[in-house]
Amino acid sequence: MSKTFNFVPGPTPIPDRINRRMAEPVLSHRSAEFSRLLERVSDNLRYLFQTQNDVLVLTASGTGAMEAAIVNLMSSGDRVVAIRAGKFGGRWVELCRTFGIDVIPVDVPWGEAVDPRQVETVLNASGSVTALLATHSETSTGVLHDIETLGKIAREHGCLFVVDSISGMGANELRPDDWNVDVVVAGSQKGLMLPPGLAFISMSTRAWEQTGKASIPSYYFSLKRAKDALLKGYTPYTPAVTLLSGLDEALAEVREIGLEAVYAHHARLAQATRAGIAALGLSLFARTPSNVLTSVALPSELNGNALLKIIKSECGVTIANGMDDYRGKVIRIAHLGYAVSPFDMLAAISALEYGLDKMGVMFDFGAGVAAVHRGLMQKR
Amino acid sequence: MSKTFNFVPGPTPIPDRINRRMAEPVLSHRSAEFSRLLERVSDNLRYLFQTQNDVLVLTASGTGAMEAAIVNLMSSGDRVVAIRAGKFGGRWVELCRTFGIDVIPVDVPWGEAVDPRQVETVLNASGSVTALLATHSETSTGVLHDIETLGKIAREHGCLFVVDSISGMGANELRPDDWNVDVVVAGSQKGLMLPPGLAFISMSTRAWEQTGKASIPSYYFSLKRAKDALLKGYTPYTPAVTLLSGLDEALAEVREIGLEAVYAHHARLAQATRAGIAALGLSLFARTPSNVLTSVALPSELNGNALLKIIKSECGVTIANGMDDYRGKVIRIAHLGYAVSPFDMLAAISALEYGLDKMGVMFDFGAGVAAVHRGLMQKR
Repeated sequence: MSKTFNFVPGPTPIPDRINRRMAEPVLSHRSAEFSRLLERVSDNLRYLFQTQNDVLVLTASGTGAMEAAIVNLMSSGDRVVAIRAGKFGGRWVELCRTFGIDVIPVDVPWGEAVDPRQVETVLNASGSVTALLATHSETSTGVLHDIETLGKIAREHGCLFVVDSISGMGANELRPDDWNVDVVVAGSQKGLMLPPGLAFISMSTRAWEQTGKASIPSYYFSLKRAKDALLKGYTPYTPAVTLLSGLDEALAEVREIGLEAVYAHHARLAQATRAGIAALGLSLFARTPSNVLTSVALPSELNGNALLKIIKSECGVTIANGMDDYRGKVIRIAHLGYAVSPFDMLAAISALEYGLDKMGVMFDFGAGVAAVHRGLMQKR
Repeated sequence: MSKTFNFVPGPTPIPDRINRRMAEPVLSHRSAEFSRLLERVSDNLRYLFQTQNDVLVLTASGTGAMEAAIVNLMSSGDRVVAIRAGKFGGRWVELCRTFGIDVIPVDVPWGEAVDPRQVETVLNASGSVTALLATHSETSTGVLHDIETLGKIAREHGCLFVVDSISGMGANELRPDDWNVDVVVAGSQKGLMLPPGLAFISMSTRAWEQTGKASIPSYYFSLKRAKDALLKGYTPYTPAVTLLSGLDEALAEVREIGLEAVYAHHARLAQATRAGIAALGLSLFARTPSNVLTSVALPSELNGNALLKIIKSECGVTIANGMDDYRGKVIRIAHLGYAVSPFDMLAAISALEYGLDKMGVMFDFGAGVAAVHRGLMQKR
């Protein structure tokens, strides 16, 4: 079997070093070794999140941490404003409605970033609001949202600011403490280069204060239980210990490399990939693109499903399809995690060129790969 | 570093075959390969659970699946009866109270199995009850409960029967369809020899019908969402894909070995271990012991914390401590999962003898190991 390439925006490829660590004998989650690991991981998560706040680890998908934010902060009947600029912004709205929260969606066309003035207008018209819910990097569209400006607006309106950075964390800068973000949610299977199964949530002092007023019941996702257990050196329920060992390794690697270098890596791969797309005469779908993935709006006559099938079956390269209404119309090429080599992006665009050619698209064959190469080497 | 031994009742040791599988490149959870894996796993889970019902996979600790049972089946104000014969029976009670359910606990002293007549008496006095909640193998005490008889009682009283078999599954026989069990909950880190991070829940037709009447909101743990997604070949949120690959391998192994042989393995190790304990003049803590673990009631003058510390630090052997009030007074030796060799039980009892001797306990040194040996070889 020939080597395959995976450019989906999570689960991302896992470095050998992390895989080897996860294959070590399983720790007992009631041992002193485990408590030391949990303490180290909690400390290093604060570095990754760039926050002095608590960062708690949950055994769940990222959606579990989103639910934890809702059920720990809200009461049924509370009003919140949620930015819905893609599938994952929509998840905030669905979650709120499930738990009886009066959610006011700020709808933004897929592919665009929210205009902060639109959020301001909605907040001005909404009366008292418990929280503003946003998405850092919207994985369904490849759009990066302006969290810093949104944070200022949330603070001016005296509401909590809750940000889903499940795919954004570690790829695009986020400064919760400087940007007034009270709650940040992230997952293991994105920039951290781990398998899915762990989710993370950071909580500011203001957010912890709010938990005292919240009345939606929670048990598995109770952050108070998680924090009480953490202070004693463990987790309230059996955690995904092998993933936590992998996390320990991944966070050590992030600290060794340094977060600035990790961001720069993602920016470099993103810029080179975008250059490749432009050189092929294709359009970016995202107006303000995230460094997590490059989303491409295909020409209307091109069948994206067929294109991706060719690329997968004939090149062994997996590129993600568009989601929901954009399936077959948008493709999404992730460059997420330090385990993706800059040279891998040559493979992505080479396979894309192969597929486009097979589909009968006319373009300057090789122009995309050359542009990626020049972009990576930062030469004109 | 010398080889170490782990006799805690989960997470259990992971066979190399499963570890290698989990280290393979991470699957995309939106690929055809993943859908095939999920279908195969769902089918094999029905074999493991010995049921024709749906068995759903959740990315969570076992407690997450317990919560799923509650929030999908109940409404606030519903009345249930829960057997509380240890820490994990207590978890049913805590979960119910969190979600506003009127829970009537049937309290049983730790170390004893519930007397089904006691449950009958409580149900007779309780009026209409939505469900009876029980524990198959109570990990905190090592006790096996009589699920078959309890199932008959639940049926006679017209209530659903919900069983936590998180540690019991695959080690002690359970026949949900013959024994009238509507909902069974299990976890990955026990008899399945996987790391923690996946939980399972089987649902009978009667249980699915009840979900239509239940009004506690659920999103992450919504079983309707999980089933709807499963019918399309995926999971509603990014699942722990590497653990699912390991599960695929573990279930294939269980089918190859056959469930009867897996049960027999656990029975053999349990009997030999109990024989070793008896030969040392120690008492079993569990009246009706589970084949998952052997819990030992230490003489009151013996400090269990110090004993386990010696065994861990000087022999590299981890034996579990008692829980809550029984910490330091009870020790728990697990023999859980096919990855535990019969010969490993010699190491467990040898290390225990070493520790007892160091602590100044007088006994026939070697009698425990000899009894384990004879037990394993089924010779007198």
